[in-house]
Amino acid sequence: MPHIQLPEGLQGIRGPMAFRPETAKPLNELAEILLHAPNSLAPGERELIATYVSHLNDCYFCQTVHGAIAAAHLDGDEDLVRRVKADFQHADISAKLKALLVIASKVQRGGKHVTASDVEEARQAGATDIEIHDTVLIAAAFCMFNRYVDGLATWQPEDEELYRQRGKKTARDGYVTMSREYLPQPELETQGA
Amino acid sequence: MPHIQLPEGLQGIRGPMAFRPETAKPLNELAEILLHAPNSLAPGERELIATYVSHLNDCYFCQTVHGAIAAAHLDGDEDLVRRVKADFQHADISAKLKALLVIASKVQRGGKHVTASDVEEARQAGATDIEIHDTVLIAAAFCMFNRYVDGLATWQPEDEELYRQRGKKTARDGYVTMSREYLPQPELETQGA
Repeated sequence: MPHIQLPEGLQGIRGPMAFRPETAKPLNELAEILLHAPNSLAPGERELIATYVSHLNDCYFCQTVHGAIAAAHLDGDEDLVRRVKADFQHADISAKLKALLVIASKVQRGGKHVTASDVEEARQAGATDIEIHDTVLIAAAFCMFNRYVDGLATWQPEDEELYRQRGKKTARDGYVTMSREYLPQPELETQGA
Repeated sequence: MPHIQLPEGLQGIRGPMAFRPETAKPLNELAEILLHAPNSLAPGERELIATYVSHLNDCYFCQTVHGAIAAAHLDGDEDLVRRVKADFQHADISAKLKALLVIASKVQRGGKHVTASDVEEARQAGATDIEIHDTVLIAAAFCMFNRYVDGLATWQPEDEELYRQRGKKTARDGYVTMSREYLPQPELETQGA
């Protein structure tokens, strides 16, 4: 049972977002820019970073829904998502993404764990400064999202198909539309005189 | 030295925010709503929660600047800020704020550490659902901000007076104005024909 009275029937982060739309707006805008907006890192790569950090933080909702979004971006390859979570160094992903996942895993433990040599390895594998920046911020942001979701003991159903459907929708529409679901609908303006 | 090439002369989070104004915007909006906007928790109380979590995460920049903002809200009482960081259970703060700091410290370790009895104690001390929600999200958000600041090895000068001045400015103006400092200035429109 959630620690506070959240709107019912909304899984994971959607409960507290509907409860507090004022904070949902910048949270979804941040997710939109980091994960969905055009970027030299593909959306599937960025969602894999989010999924991996959520897995390290043991957040069932976030790792399942972002794993589903990642898979939707990766032609439905759920097996790749599983292999990245279990042992990304031996998964079929680029050397650059592996180096960025090393940085993300350090950020998950704490910002000071990231070393100059971690960053140098990512750069040698072709990562740009903005890709390194975004990896650090994606990993840091999921240390927030995971704590938000679990710190309020949100409802996290275990029906995988539900996450798969939500994953396809978010992979297609992004995150900003999610905020709109919670906002009061504007009054229709009356036309003419 | 920062891990990536950040604009020089901007301490702490201001470097990466100037580097990536697209993400700075929702980050500052989130800080504005959580810490500065009208709320039944005073800004000084919310800044103490942010400072305490940043102290637990050992982030020098965040605990120093938010400690300075807290002190500015608390009639300059820097000693209270120090006492909250060292041992909040014996500091001169309300029972409600102590119970919220317990929740914040659990969130810092991981969302699942927050128990129903932690939340019940906060409620017995007078905390509302929205205050509990905001405490969880402030603590979670500082687990992000701290990792962002330290994960990029940002410049964090040790001149306390600099933080004191910044603290007064942010306590007065809030966070949204900070984003504007980094945005490209709009072209002046030419007037007339």
